[in-house]
Amino acid sequence: MRVSLEGFIFAPKAYYGSLTMRKGKIFSLSTRKTPKRIRKLILPGMISTHVHTIQTHARNHAENMELLTWLKKVIWPFEASLKAKGAYASASDGMKECLQFGITTILDMATTRHTDKVFEAARDVGIRGYIGKALMDSGPKELIDTHPLEELEELLADWHGKENGRLHVTLCPRFVLSCSEELLKKVGVLSRELQLLHHTHASENRAECEWIRKNYRASNIEILEKFGCLNERTILAHGVHLSTQDKQILKKRRVTLSHCPTSNLKLASGYADLMKLKGIALSLGVDGAPCNNRLDPFFEMRLAHLLSRYHHGLKGMSAKRIFELATLSGARALHAERYIGSLETGKRADIVVMNVPDLVEFNPDFPYESLLHSLSAADVHSVYVDGRKVFTRF
Amino acid sequence: MRVSLEGFIFAPKAYYGSLTMRKGKIFSLSTRKTPKRIRKLILPGMISTHVHTIQTHARNHAENMELLTWLKKVIWPFEASLKAKGAYASASDGMKECLQFGITTILDMATTRHTDKVFEAARDVGIRGYIGKALMDSGPKELIDTHPLEELEELLADWHGKENGRLHVTLCPRFVLSCSEELLKKVGVLSRELQLLHHTHASENRAECEWIRKNYRASNIEILEKFGCLNERTILAHGVHLSTQDKQILKKRRVTLSHCPTSNLKLASGYADLMKLKGIALSLGVDGAPCNNRLDPFFEMRLAHLLSRYHHGLKGMSAKRIFELATLSGARALHAERYIGSLETGKRADIVVMNVPDLVEFNPDFPYESLLHSLSAADVHSVYVDGRKVFTRF
Repeated sequence: MRVSLEGFIFAPKAYYGSLTMRKGKIFSLSTRKTPKRIRKLILPGMISTHVHTIQTHARNHAENMELLTWLKKVIWPFEASLKAKGAYASASDGMKECLQFGITTILDMATTRHTDKVFEAARDVGIRGYIGKALMDSGPKELIDTHPLEELEELLADWHGKENGRLHVTLCPRFVLSCSEELLKKVGVLSRELQLLHHTHASENRAECEWIRKNYRASNIEILEKFGCLNERTILAHGVHLSTQDKQILKKRRVTLSHCPTSNLKLASGYADLMKLKGIALSLGVDGAPCNNRLDPFFEMRLAHLLSRYHHGLKGMSAKRIFELATLSGARALHAERYIGSLETGKRADIVVMNVPDLVEFNPDFPYESLLHSLSAADVHSVYVDGRKVFTRF
Repeated sequence: MRVSLEGFIFAPKAYYGSLTMRKGKIFSLSTRKTPKRIRKLILPGMISTHVHTIQTHARNHAENMELLTWLKKVIWPFEASLKAKGAYASASDGMKECLQFGITTILDMATTRHTDKVFEAARDVGIRGYIGKALMDSGPKELIDTHPLEELEELLADWHGKENGRLHVTLCPRFVLSCSEELLKKVGVLSRELQLLHHTHASENRAECEWIRKNYRASNIEILEKFGCLNERTILAHGVHLSTQDKQILKKRRVTLSHCPTSNLKLASGYADLMKLKGIALSLGVDGAPCNNRLDPFFEMRLAHLLSRYHHGLKGMSAKRIFELATLSGARALHAERYIGSLETGKRADIVVMNVPDLVEFNPDFPYESLLHSLSAADVHSVYVDGRKVFTRF
């Protein structure tokens, strides 16, 4: 089946044109005359390099707390209470929301149980999922494992590369506070040997960083480096509190940071200043529903742009570059830029179509600014993954 | 006609219940048993104490500039180019967008011409409008007036208190840079004598403040105070750059500040830290489409909450208080708290009904947090002004 779309096309170039898809891929792209009024936008699917879809049903139940209290009081007990059915439903709802809001690919950290249910949800909902079991061998008894990596072989056999390459298994040590030295070292080795993505949290919150400093006499990043955990397949969410030395390590090891500004502000963690992370690979993450509380990449892009402008004025990060963080840079973080992240012939047809609201004039001279600031996730009209329509409004 | 609504009711108290309206007013309110799943929210109409609806058609045409360049290069030429029909259409579209996004009352600065068209738009669209001609006797020739107050009498006769008290005339000197000393002094006198609201911009941008310091050897606020412009009917948009002395003056004169965080960040003006404005009356404004670029009070509230948390952690302004800025505090700024700003019997029936999306669980234990962070303007379902339905989705 061949599908044709016409509208203002984003990324890598920005122009009015048409796009056809065939057999799950982008088949052709061509330029057309820009009409007086632009009514449709065609974007590559957004990529969120940090999310916890399994936490979706804890949304609006964990307010006005900082990270460690939030985890201990609400998130961990919630995750521990999940049974298979609830895990499936929560992850599934999170993934549906991602699709509705234009996210077609997620790097998703599950919990310590029911990782198979999160894969099942992704299989059924139709999202592109890089999913991993949360690895924890330290912390609340009802949640942690003594041998957290035991399931890995089975997960790989069951899910890695399945659904025509739409699903992928990743390694997800939760964060240094809930992982032993032995576990972290194993993750580093496995990530290299099996070429698996390594998705974790780091340097998000002051108390977290202080705990690490006190227990290891080193920074979070230094410890991950020391344990051999950092490589070009590592995606670290947050990176709010980084020293100059930390930044040099991240750059040298070609680690990607997943910028999650809403989550960082809402949990009172702080702000990761993108302009001070030059040379470090960046991407964007919506994080989970209990901290964000929407899995909305358009809010995230707009906030990231406004915050960078707040800190650096007009020299802050451009709207175009912010958009790139949520698309092609996300694809690079996942080592998937050959397949997704931009609209180019031969790439997978992961596509978002947006309607320009009647009251808004989209200006093709400022396409990225118009998109980020005058539109919203509510304007997403239809979403395709591998050329299959997975969401449509009305 | 009597209309009954049932849902989770906000402000001044938060509870599940029902509301009836009759003859344009809120007739009754009663509590009901909270159902397991809350599907509808009933809010007082949002009040934006700073907007320029006449600029709506310049949206997405003035990007990546700071205030003074933005005014000179795009906004003033745009305003100067408007003919009566275009002024009506632009204002009308801005007002429709306000209503769609849940704003029922606006404090709206027009331009130097066609103020009558802005009133006509408000009359026709059905929004509650506090509208004023932009007063400028200094600046670009094609825009300014030699006798800017000449029309006042006619505007008052034609519009003040019209449409059953829904429309009001206000005094709107643009800002100190475009007003002579004589004009500012007259505004102060008229505001007091005629009990008119005085709506202006102040201390928004560094270059603006420096110009005033250089030309008057005083701060923006000191000059307004000196010219007799500050009283309890004064609403100043922005207040980003205020000295301790400035703040004392504003407090003493019972001036209201209209906080416009998106506009301030986007125009690289800075941030007005609400927690450092204690004792000063506050309210919220979406500002105009060419700087925001959405007239969206939900984005504005969410951003205000996130920014306050960023600067002050969990001690920042609460979600409840932010909501109040956009409702009851806005009503107080307009000296209209007896009529609007909260859901109380006898008040005008300016009401917003929101649908809770299927994927979202609204938590009545955190009503304001749930509202600000998990819902959005796209969830506004219907809007009433004076009990008349002025917007409904589908």
